[in-house]
Amino acid sequence: MGDSANKGINRRTALKSAAGLGAAATGAGLAAGLVLSGQSKNISRSGPALLGQASRTLRMVTTWPKNFPGLGTGAARLAQRISDVSGGTLAVQVYAAGELVPALSAFDAVSQGKADLYHGAEYYWQGRSPAFNFFAAVPMGLTASEMEAWIRFGGGQALWDRLSARFNIKPFIAGNTGVQMGGWFKRPVDTLEDFRGLRIRMPGLGGEVMQRLGATPVTKAGGELFQALDQGNIDATEWVGPWNDMAFAFHTIAKSYYYPGIHEPGTTLSMGVNLSLWNDLDDRERAIIQESATAESLTMRSEFEHNNAMALERLIETTDVKLRRFSDPVLKRMAEISEQVLAEVAASDSFTAEVYDSFKTARRRGARWGEISEQAFAAARAFSTNR
Amino acid sequence: MGDSANKGINRRTALKSAAGLGAAATGAGLAAGLVLSGQSKNISRSGPALLGQASRTLRMVTTWPKNFPGLGTGAARLAQRISDVSGGTLAVQVYAAGELVPALSAFDAVSQGKADLYHGAEYYWQGRSPAFNFFAAVPMGLTASEMEAWIRFGGGQALWDRLSARFNIKPFIAGNTGVQMGGWFKRPVDTLEDFRGLRIRMPGLGGEVMQRLGATPVTKAGGELFQALDQGNIDATEWVGPWNDMAFAFHTIAKSYYYPGIHEPGTTLSMGVNLSLWNDLDDRERAIIQESATAESLTMRSEFEHNNAMALERLIETTDVKLRRFSDPVLKRMAEISEQVLAEVAASDSFTAEVYDSFKTARRRGARWGEISEQAFAAARAFSTNR
Repeated sequence: MGDSANKGINRRTALKSAAGLGAAATGAGLAAGLVLSGQSKNISRSGPALLGQASRTLRMVTTWPKNFPGLGTGAARLAQRISDVSGGTLAVQVYAAGELVPALSAFDAVSQGKADLYHGAEYYWQGRSPAFNFFAAVPMGLTASEMEAWIRFGGGQALWDRLSARFNIKPFIAGNTGVQMGGWFKRPVDTLEDFRGLRIRMPGLGGEVMQRLGATPVTKAGGELFQALDQGNIDATEWVGPWNDMAFAFHTIAKSYYYPGIHEPGTTLSMGVNLSLWNDLDDRERAIIQESATAESLTMRSEFEHNNAMALERLIETTDVKLRRFSDPVLKRMAEISEQVLAEVAASDSFTAEVYDSFKTARRRGARWGEISEQAFAAARAFSTNR
Repeated sequence: MGDSANKGINRRTALKSAAGLGAAATGAGLAAGLVLSGQSKNISRSGPALLGQASRTLRMVTTWPKNFPGLGTGAARLAQRISDVSGGTLAVQVYAAGELVPALSAFDAVSQGKADLYHGAEYYWQGRSPAFNFFAAVPMGLTASEMEAWIRFGGGQALWDRLSARFNIKPFIAGNTGVQMGGWFKRPVDTLEDFRGLRIRMPGLGGEVMQRLGATPVTKAGGELFQALDQGNIDATEWVGPWNDMAFAFHTIAKSYYYPGIHEPGTTLSMGVNLSLWNDLDDRERAIIQESATAESLTMRSEFEHNNAMALERLIETTDVKLRRFSDPVLKRMAEISEQVLAEVAASDSFTAEVYDSFKTARRRGARWGEISEQAFAAARAFSTNR
């Protein structure tokens, strides 16, 4: 199971990299920190009824709380899809974070064969290799569409395969949150000065950007955020987008909601399959698992788009929250710092440098095309919809 | 096989509508007009080897020339996917436009059971009901992401199911071209005056917008466009985007390439299944067909994004073509006219009005969310990538 020599090298590389980037880079992003207490006995919808007749039952560990909207529910839907498309011959039992292994151990569990599949976000494994960041989200990185184009057609999948194969894992895209929001702030941050000493919950590379901006990034689990913000232990927090954020009621205690979330512009979720198992599957089983992940990627992203748009409308119409765009001087500085951070991550090792190079090409092309397609169109349509 | 009473009503409605919108509205959009001469004997990759062992062989007619890049190849890939995921028990034989039936007869062929599936774009069936336009693309309509969100989560699929069921068809999203380009112009069109008398190839509702702008929309098959533009029989033509357009070599004869293509902001491709067949399929077969269409939708869209971005870079770096944005006065007038045209289409019948209403809600929400997510992010990232 796996190549322990390679694994050792990468652990050393990762440690070096984490040290170089400061403590924030080792924090867990997104929702992985939000772990329910206790073990749940529930399993996914594709579970009990089909386990008996299935020729294979796969165990999927996830980095999400059970049924966490969008991410946990998406993982469960992916499991259901595999079962449906296989006519029940492949069953998938889904484990929420902490049920079989802790959230951030999902990768190791699949690598070692303790589980067959994981659903998570690759930046959680940046301790294994800093290159993993590029396959989830990096500051000023790729949008969802650009990420899909890069992975599926721009050479991204081949690089990702090489990276994950070192850990006995075959990776696939399996979801996207879309652009995240910049976060909830208890007071406006219009100038660079306003970030000095600001205690903000922002994990990973985004937290590193905040630190260099003069803020103090704080690592906190999702379940602790409301209280910490309410009691003034933190001044600001990012979470996901309007849909997930309003469910946490941040709008009742912080009145400045900033955009855009340059730290996670299209967070890609992933499914990892134990590579030894993958090699044992027949062509049909592989096709079922792969196509189900692709279908779920689009479905989850569409669900986020729809629900974020709905929640944003509710926020605008029913709350006193002020939507604020980060000022140009702040965004310019964030952009400068982000480029420095990415270049430093890339310098960790030659493989990460290769990934960074491919990523940059995809970003340059995607940005050019996006400017005259989606962005130019949206600006033109505003003449209609703003009337 | 369908409800002939309903069908009769809809044919009348459609005629009324087409008359109201002028001849342009009855033209075929996109590539359907480009039909290869002669009949090809080739069938898709999922063809011969598997036909013998398949428990079902489905015939898929398409509105595309064989292997037309993106659209024809996407239809073939969808067929391959269904075969792969089913382990070869479902085989799909793909027919290019004209092989089994002409491009624009694909809908009727599936409706009547002469074929099992079609791959096409719903605006080709606007003669059956003007409501079909909203499930492909309309001027100043939805982007690809907004379309996926509307159909999958915003009530769009239920409306589409009701519409297509009248014709004995079960519809699915099965691809997207992304935002199209505004077209190739032999001389710049900076002012509204410049559109007076301009002979431009633009089919469908986009052509109607052009007509009201003072231009003369012309209906021409794709294969005739290069010569017509070269010889001055037309002054301008839209086609798809940089990838498909450069393959046609328009850049060698027209030097002004305009954006954005407000007439087709996220053209959605679709798969229609004969509804009687659909009702006969078991749960597994349905899941295979449905999930394959979802997976292909994302794959095709990603392929267009990647290849358009690549082609645009090549165009910028290797040709003397001038990329031009339509001026604000032109875009404002296009927006006004587009809203008039959509309102008139919606007034055709009560069902189309219901679809329009749902579409407008999705567009309003999507535009608001897009402004603070994708667009705000892209503008912020320009501080990085433009350096």
